[in-house]
Amino acid sequence: MNTTIGVGILGAGTVGGALVARLVDERSSIAAKTGLDLVVRRVAVKDLNKPRDFVVADGVLTDDRNSVIDDPEIDLVVELMGGRDLAGDLVLAALEAGKPVVTANKELVASRGPDLIAAAERSGVAFLFEAAVGGGIPIIRPLSESLAGEPVERVLGIVNGTTNFILTRMAEDGADYADSLAEAQELGYAEPDPTADVSGADAAAKAAILASLAFGTWVGLDDVYHEGIDALSSVDMAFASDFGYAVKLVAVAERLGTGVSVRVHPVMIPLDHPLASIRGATNAIFIEGPSVGELLFSGPGAGGAPTATAVLGDVIDAARETLAGAQVAPRIRFSPGDLVPFGDVPTKWYIRLEVDDRPGVLAQIAAAFGSAGVSIKSVWQEGEGSEALLLIVTHRAREAAQREAARNLREVEALRNVASVIRVESDEP
Amino acid sequence: MNTTIGVGILGAGTVGGALVARLVDERSSIAAKTGLDLVVRRVAVKDLNKPRDFVVADGVLTDDRNSVIDDPEIDLVVELMGGRDLAGDLVLAALEAGKPVVTANKELVASRGPDLIAAAERSGVAFLFEAAVGGGIPIIRPLSESLAGEPVERVLGIVNGTTNFILTRMAEDGADYADSLAEAQELGYAEPDPTADVSGADAAAKAAILASLAFGTWVGLDDVYHEGIDALSSVDMAFASDFGYAVKLVAVAERLGTGVSVRVHPVMIPLDHPLASIRGATNAIFIEGPSVGELLFSGPGAGGAPTATAVLGDVIDAARETLAGAQVAPRIRFSPGDLVPFGDVPTKWYIRLEVDDRPGVLAQIAAAFGSAGVSIKSVWQEGEGSEALLLIVTHRAREAAQREAARNLREVEALRNVASVIRVESDEP
Repeated sequence: MNTTIGVGILGAGTVGGALVARLVDERSSIAAKTGLDLVVRRVAVKDLNKPRDFVVADGVLTDDRNSVIDDPEIDLVVELMGGRDLAGDLVLAALEAGKPVVTANKELVASRGPDLIAAAERSGVAFLFEAAVGGGIPIIRPLSESLAGEPVERVLGIVNGTTNFILTRMAEDGADYADSLAEAQELGYAEPDPTADVSGADAAAKAAILASLAFGTWVGLDDVYHEGIDALSSVDMAFASDFGYAVKLVAVAERLGTGVSVRVHPVMIPLDHPLASIRGATNAIFIEGPSVGELLFSGPGAGGAPTATAVLGDVIDAARETLAGAQVAPRIRFSPGDLVPFGDVPTKWYIRLEVDDRPGVLAQIAAAFGSAGVSIKSVWQEGEGSEALLLIVTHRAREAAQREAARNLREVEALRNVASVIRVESDEP
Repeated sequence: MNTTIGVGILGAGTVGGALVARLVDERSSIAAKTGLDLVVRRVAVKDLNKPRDFVVADGVLTDDRNSVIDDPEIDLVVELMGGRDLAGDLVLAALEAGKPVVTANKELVASRGPDLIAAAERSGVAFLFEAAVGGGIPIIRPLSESLAGEPVERVLGIVNGTTNFILTRMAEDGADYADSLAEAQELGYAEPDPTADVSGADAAAKAAILASLAFGTWVGLDDVYHEGIDALSSVDMAFASDFGYAVKLVAVAERLGTGVSVRVHPVMIPLDHPLASIRGATNAIFIEGPSVGELLFSGPGAGGAPTATAVLGDVIDAARETLAGAQVAPRIRFSPGDLVPFGDVPTKWYIRLEVDDRPGVLAQIAAAFGSAGVSIKSVWQEGEGSEALLLIVTHRAREAAQREAARNLREVEALRNVASVIRVESDEP
């Protein structure tokens, strides 16, 4: 049996470069372990003159991206360019040409997933994206294959290493947000423009993919409510810790009644929850199901080498299926389902208020919550007089009711500022 | 396309019963999510008269095991009987008849894996065993597929929930071994005859499977050195904690030079290691590789419902491949490799000695280690006079040298007893 598989790669940045080096350097050991001879035929890059720290061995470095799709000696295409338009068109062309595609592009999968999955199904080839969520952590394959028979109830994930690094610095060293971000940039954990990470948008794309696979209902990028970490203060991190919580940016995907809610925002999570102890740039995904109980997967969520490992696993899987020569059935089918708007999701709020500490103020604040139908679980006062802070934790209520309560607070004369709001994740009502 | 897959099940104990109930109750939701109509045709049991808490719907409960293999309406066989001889012969017959097989039987895979994998390859069908290690935790598929391109260096696993439950009770409540075992038996975590668990034999079978998949070199059940937990004392758990360690029964599979070492024994592991905080009956597997860094998978390692989830994931995967109709290429190929005998493995020992505290005794003990080429890292004395204990931690040396040192100790007159030996896992030399 001829076991040679020609591989074409679109994009040779951090992950692409690491992948090419692995495919070339470990060709014989991969062949020994898998029976597959993976040969890099073409690597398409934007700028041929840029220095590269890999060599393509018997293959060709090219700036003609279409040649990767068209080359008859290329059996399998790996997309590592990023972006959704050009990358998506090339992926679609490859799938339509009957070539399996492996990608690490979360934005592409979250925004154009259904079309690409349908194209793969029409051609009977694989479309795999293990590296799109959680970097080197195997999570897509466990969720869509090992747990295919589990009616998953909830997925909680720390899926953005940049923000978890920043939050860890703020929590452990009392550093403020700006300094922690600057440090993350210096160390290469954050981009010069950190918006995609700190706004929660990167995590939202990953949340959409996790939810789609967990529930079998396609969730698009725009269906995910997201808030970032840029409004968090180390003051709140310290209070959270005093109350027995850690503050994490968490992607939440859960079944609510007959619908599904998917959202990304900062969360106060109990210190004994497995996600509370995930430090630095590490990612972790926590899955709950009625039969399987609680599963935790953790590891490096980004970086060229770990992500290349995930891509390589998909390449081997797709190559194996290609050699088997059959029409590949899709791993998962999507059914229509209801998305629950964030306003209808039951949440618990931690809210920090700056108030003038005068008689009657607490009664007015309690009334503001009460008239919105939100009951208060605990109130904690820090400081006195015009420096007073009120830390309030509510019981669970619809997010829309919590927001109504916050609007009602504007009527309270002694209230100077709603300094922060963090949702609380706990098993209590 | 006809997407009906007839399923035959051998054995209907805890896992088999849970699987049948899931397949019957969730038939339509599984079909919606996967496109597969899985129909239970036959469930073979030993005793037809035993009461069952499931119904086989359109299928047949039978005591004729061979009928499961022979029934032309059965496309896929699930083996959940346990044992290696009869179960193995039936699995082999099914594979030779061209039917994919899913099993949760670690003993069977560890003892007859190569023959069964070869039979599956000859027939071009799948032989899957996700549930054989780690119960509901997806670990086989991540290790053999997602990490197929990673030259894994080391796998450390807490893969036996019974012993981890007992060790957690001993560590957290100072309970002794016998009481903790009795409690585990009362709660159903330990069998009436707990030998397979407490001796480390169960973990050894799982270690053999993990090592085989991680390194691509087949490791048989008899190649795994194993020690159990029955000689551990809560005294040692307390000392371990004072020194910053937890005591866990750990399955270790690692590359050593050009070979592979696989072993199961109690280990003192630093409290900040992710495995140190795995409590109760939970299992966890920790994987290290040069590119992927450190990965942790944790969850329920046993129990009918979680294990049935893992089996069901494999059934769906195998059914999907069956429908694709192709010859299924094996997921992994095994190459010959060297197994490093335990005597050649570098280990660090914690050793507790009961001594008469008299002048010169420490010098004699140090000489016993020194003449075996083992150097001592630290010595700690507890108590005085004839009640004295010496707690010694060595530097790393070949296991055979550590044992020679232990033999040399017999010459030390003031030594009354070598009360315990626990190997220490740490990054220090």
